Amino acid sequence: MTSTDTRPVAEPTAEEAAALEQLYADFAAAHMAPLWTQRAGLMPETPEPAAVPMLWRWSTLYPLAARSGELVPVGRGGERRAIALANPGLPGTAYATPTLWAAIQYLGPREEAPAHRHTQTAFRFVVEGEGVWTNVAGDPVAMRRGDLLLTPGMHFHEHHNTTDHPMAWVDGLDIPLVRQLDAGFFEFGPDQLATRETPVASRNERLWAHPGLRPIGAPRTPASPLMAYRWEHTDAALTAQLELEREGHPGVISPGHAAIRFSNPATGGDALSTIRCEMHRLAPAARSATSRVAGSAVWQVFSGSGVVTVGAERYEVATGDLFAVPSWAPVTITADEGLDAFRFSDDPVFEALGLARSTVEKEQAGKHA
Amino acid sequence: MTSTDTRPVAEPTAEEAAALEQLYADFAAAHMAPLWTQRAGLMPETPEPAAVPMLWRWSTLYPLAARSGELVPVGRGGERRAIALANPGLPGTAYATPTLWAAIQYLGPREEAPAHRHTQTAFRFVVEGEGVWTNVAGDPVAMRRGDLLLTPGMHFHEHHNTTDHPMAWVDGLDIPLVRQLDAGFFEFGPDQLATRETPVASRNERLWAHPGLRPIGAPRTPASPLMAYRWEHTDAALTAQLELEREGHPGVISPGHAAIRFSNPATGGDALSTIRCEMHRLAPAARSATSRVAGSAVWQVFSGSGVVTVGAERYEVATGDLFAVPSWAPVTITADEGLDAFRFSDDPVFEALGLARSTVEKEQAGKHA
Amino acid sequence: MTSTDTRPVAEPTAEEAAALEQLYADFAAAHMAPLWTQRAGLMPETPEPAAVPMLWRWSTLYPLAARSGELVPVGRGGERRAIALANPGLPGTAYATPTLWAAIQYLGPREEAPAHRHTQTAFRFVVEGEGVWTNVAGDPVAMRRGDLLLTPGMHFHEHHNTTDHPMAWVDGLDIPLVRQLDAGFFEFGPDQLATRETPVASRNERLWAHPGLRPIGAPRTPASPLMAYRWEHTDAALTAQLELEREGHPGVISPGHAAIRFSNPATGGDALSTIRCEMHRLAPAARSATSRVAGSAVWQVFSGSGVVTVGAERYEVATGDLFAVPSWAPVTITADEGLDAFRFSDDPVFEALGLARSTVEKEQAGKHA
Amino acid sequence: MTSTDTRPVAEPTAEEAAALEQLYADFAAAHMAPLWTQRAGLMPETPEPAAVPMLWRWSTLYPLAARSGELVPVGRGGERRAIALANPGLPGTAYATPTLWAAIQYLGPREEAPAHRHTQTAFRFVVEGEGVWTNVAGDPVAMRRGDLLLTPGMHFHEHHNTTDHPMAWVDGLDIPLVRQLDAGFFEFGPDQLATRETPVASRNERLWAHPGLRPIGAPRTPASPLMAYRWEHTDAALTAQLELEREGHPGVISPGHAAIRFSNPATGGDALSTIRCEMHRLAPAARSATSRVAGSAVWQVFSGSGVVTVGAERYEVATGDLFAVPSWAPVTITADEGLDAFRFSDDPVFEALGLARSTVEKEQAGKHA
Repeated sequence: MTSTDTRPVAEPTAEEAAALEQLYADFAAAHMAPLWTQRAGLMPETPEPAAVPMLWRWSTLYPLAARSGELVPVGRGGERRAIALANPGLPGTAYATPTLWAAIQYLGPREEAPAHRHTQTAFRFVVEGEGVWTNVAGDPVAMRRGDLLLTPGMHFHEHHNTTDHPMAWVDGLDIPLVRQLDAGFFEFGPDQLATRETPVASRNERLWAHPGLRPIGAPRTPASPLMAYRWEHTDAALTAQLELEREGHPGVISPGHAAIRFSNPATGGDALSTIRCEMHRLAPAARSATSRVAGSAVWQVFSGSGVVTVGAERYEVATGDLFAVPSWAPVTITADEGLDAFRFSDDPVFEALGLARSTVEKEQAGKHA
Repeated sequence: MTSTDTRPVAEPTAEEAAALEQLYADFAAAHMAPLWTQRAGLMPETPEPAAVPMLWRWSTLYPLAARSGELVPVGRGGERRAIALANPGLPGTAYATPTLWAAIQYLGPREEAPAHRHTQTAFRFVVEGEGVWTNVAGDPVAMRRGDLLLTPGMHFHEHHNTTDHPMAWVDGLDIPLVRQLDAGFFEFGPDQLATRETPVASRNERLWAHPGLRPIGAPRTPASPLMAYRWEHTDAALTAQLELEREGHPGVISPGHAAIRFSNPATGGDALSTIRCEMHRLAPAARSATSRVAGSAVWQVFSGSGVVTVGAERYEVATGDLFAVPSWAPVTITADEGLDAFRFSDDPVFEALGLARSTVEKEQAGKHA
Repeated sequence: MTSTDTRPVAEPTAEEAAALEQLYADFAAAHMAPLWTQRAGLMPETPEPAAVPMLWRWSTLYPLAARSGELVPVGRGGERRAIALANPGLPGTAYATPTLWAAIQYLGPREEAPAHRHTQTAFRFVVEGEGVWTNVAGDPVAMRRGDLLLTPGMHFHEHHNTTDHPMAWVDGLDIPLVRQLDAGFFEFGPDQLATRETPVASRNERLWAHPGLRPIGAPRTPASPLMAYRWEHTDAALTAQLELEREGHPGVISPGHAAIRFSNPATGGDALSTIRCEMHRLAPAARSATSRVAGSAVWQVFSGSGVVTVGAERYEVATGDLFAVPSWAPVTITADEGLDAFRFSDDPVFEALGLARSTVEKEQAGKHA
Repeated sequence: MTSTDTRPVAEPTAEEAAALEQLYADFAAAHMAPLWTQRAGLMPETPEPAAVPMLWRWSTLYPLAARSGELVPVGRGGERRAIALANPGLPGTAYATPTLWAAIQYLGPREEAPAHRHTQTAFRFVVEGEGVWTNVAGDPVAMRRGDLLLTPGMHFHEHHNTTDHPMAWVDGLDIPLVRQLDAGFFEFGPDQLATRETPVASRNERLWAHPGLRPIGAPRTPASPLMAYRWEHTDAALTAQLELEREGHPGVISPGHAAIRFSNPATGGDALSTIRCEMHRLAPAARSATSRVAGSAVWQVFSGSGVVTVGAERYEVATGDLFAVPSWAPVTITADEGLDAFRFSDDPVFEALGLARSTVEKEQAGKHA
């Protein structure tokens, strides 16, 4: 599709070729590089990600995390027993996509992870288990199946497992983006846990998890004041959308496809400044529209099973499986007996920088039973 | 406190006085008016509202509304059986304050109020009763004690009472503001009700009343997409604030004083563009800080009793009582055995126009048992 | 066009009529007022302004202002020798429209007007003369023909005439709006002038009147940091628009009709928070489109002559003439040999409150020579 | 300063070491990577840029560009005769910093560069010469010494040299950022120039380069509608700041240091969505405060000479010289007989993503003669 220069160009003479070779050598010596030899690679007609579509199975991830639980201590320095998903297209890194870091974090019985804070934005999403509290800025937050827990940038946080069984969850961060921008600051907290409290509900949700109700006296924060999104609410919201669809009313994204975005109740915007978090539900046999988005994403199946296509790849997925979607790769998800999936992406970055672009091939959205 | 011109001014001669008299007559004939004779009234040093502090007792309002229920039909033309609170300082109007209209609306057994829509922003707040549905833009919304129901500008709305008993509630609108600005448009809807459905939950709250969760597929609207705020949530939010206070954590406005603001979940801003809505709770024996706000407000006691001072006035208030607070009048509320009160105000207007100003005399905030 | 209840209504019996009369009396005694008897007046189908279209001729205004210059001193208390345009539809006030105050201010040779500040937003627009400096927040601003000078809310300001001849100009303020909202605060400054400096350019324009260039080190202010808009720039901008039109490029509003809006360079928004200021230029024989706007405006012809229609009124206008446009009144302007006109309006208020609405009957926009 | 785990750790047994080795091998096979072995590199305590401070001298750049003018044609495919500044810390790229691309572009006598457009944001800054017009979205824009010319994303643009002498300038783009994000789209335009017009002023500046004046009828665009910032205005703005300083008034950043930011007149924000552009002027012998900014920048000396320190590097700089400033590197500039310098940076990216951080060591700001 590329337009190219079709004018007849004379073959360079040997003298010309030598002069050009010398020019390029002089460029290099002067720390210069010509655009014309690399324009197409630098500025492709559509995104040409190095990252590739990739699937990581929970049935592989979890046992490996459990083995590390026996061999590797959690402590100061390494800080966290987290194992990142490394995109094969980005060798030498531990990045799921060029902007997103995704890991399985594993905390053994009674283990504790010490406090630190950093510029990088983080969340935890729990696909199974419970019993760990993450203490964010002094506010102990229970982690339970289906919950999304935020750790906005520069909030001190520490974790502790209050039970006799291990727990594992998914961490998402913007480590690659912040690393690329050279934007990161990191600070160690006290070596001792600030609290071992285990309240059922965190203070932030007691103040803020009331629909449409702002606590007038609560402190103002640049980040989302709500940092715990409970599965009970997420499930109810998705259930309502599919019910409304059955009643003939708007609400779903496309037939059989319900979805919510986790948002900052003080602004209505994304829950995190650099990472968008969403939960999707496909009704039994429903197929999502095929969409392409400028920007990358990682998905985790939360429950159910189905088939996912990402570009030329086709994955049969089940609970806990994670897959990476590079920029502009078309994605389609088809549910078996229904499928819930958590998605996180760098969409807020693209929107903030005026780079957002997407297409949805609506005609391909499948009907469902 | 006014600086005045203390320079000796010669008494005008008779000739000068006559010339001045002629000048003022010529001004009048030319439709001109000098500033210097009315500057102090036009531009006082602090607000000098014509509106006065005023109390309306529910025990007076309700019986009068009930009598009108027997004598006055509800129908096309008059549109609503609503009786406004008329501030004695604003004679010839039916305004509670210079910007706010407040009324008791009464709907008899099985009665219906026909559809219309208008520029004016409206809400309903229910201090007692249930059984009426207000249908807003085709979405039937149940009205129950403690609920706040919105009717944003230019949304068609109609009401119907599904029971054999009457129901009354408070309407709040920005009629005076819109009238003063000459900003109002009004349109009649069909004479027949669009629907007599009585769902437990409206569609807008099924989509939007999930804390921090945005339905991705829902239509975007300039007004708040959430139009029903249920007492169950409001009560839980206020309860949590006072619990957090007892545990030593932030959340209340001042000791013993919890409060939430009803907000648009898509923006985090006020639920309505021109009217702020809040619910306040004072713990037993708690006293609010004394506050002065540029702008006017109307309060309704929702439950409990106490003493309110507005400027030089002192009111003993109980459930259902309403009182008007003119601009810049100091307000203090003291609870007996606890008091919940709904407040609405023109604060969003002042904020949008850069006119907001307030003082809180924190030192006066009383301790509570 | 009003839908009315056409169902046959039985004539009330004498008993019923008496009961109704008693009810209304009891309403009045309880400070209540029924909606149904006044709904149409309170909530008309389209704006029904009390303000009327009105023309004030400069040839009338100026001599009256000059007479007041001989009879009335400028000084503390009255503060300014300003004579307001009083809309005949708003008797008992000195308001040009329900939101806008417009006046001719007259300062005799060597006279001074003392410092004060107030919540009310103000500007000066100069249709003729020069020699006065207005000192705004300590920054002396020369006033010359064609200039717009701002006095944002709560900026101290004082004027002094440095010449041996009088000078008159137009003041615009939001006094009616602020009065209606009970939003005004006023403060006297020192009785003595802070400065009698007469720089050619004010400091604010030396910092900010460079197109698209922000001074990084300048203090941040909520109001527009630029407070002087010089005719030289306004004229050049309008000239360019008509030239671009002749060259076949976009830029004008409609054929032969160029216009600029005075804006805050730090935000791109209106120069003042509650008043929009614009300059319009009609080419010779050009006719503007007929427009209706929710909200009111005042225009002043700056140069040239033409014919203006406002609703049912038709005015032949010339330099200095002012006319008021009530809300939703259709306006059309036709130039003779070209016409420049300054317009100010309450549009920012309507936009901030979500009340903006307008129609432009483009088909009526006339072609010009 | 790093806290480290100082608890005595038992040396692993051979068996443990083997198990760990096997675990890491299994991680690699599963496309997983542990955080604990690379946490410090991924998340340093302060930014640890790979990019290094670097100086490119104009006296080196220009002759090499001129040689390429003789050896390399400009045409479709390579598109531009631009030679990028390649930061030695980012080998294998042609990036000045991790987010910014900077190049010298050279156009020979009568040469033309064909039209294309792309997601990447671009500007041209002219340190010497004139005679080239860049046609942006159909609007021919003259390029002259001291001018900043914008090419916002997805605007078609082409250049043509109307003279018999070559011209060179600096191009700045966000190519590295867009490449890293996989956000780029690129489109070729027609092979033939759309226009060879050479107006003195572009249409965008005729509409928008009037201080504080918005053309009401101009089309609305997401990007800055003003795309040409002329040296005449920039120079006047900087001159005024230093004059105001001498008169004792605010305006400069620090003693002897004037600066302006090129802004979008429709919003007051940055002229470009991802690149900040500024012009700085240091009075004779003035020294800037030492500042550290999270984010990277490139500077070009526009006139004068002086000494620059970037981190541990010290450069004596003169007209045309460019230097790169990595994230968080301290920068100080000291002028000889005065120095003007153009700066561009990724600050808008950091601000949009909530990552902005900076320190200014004001005590180090030098006094000047």
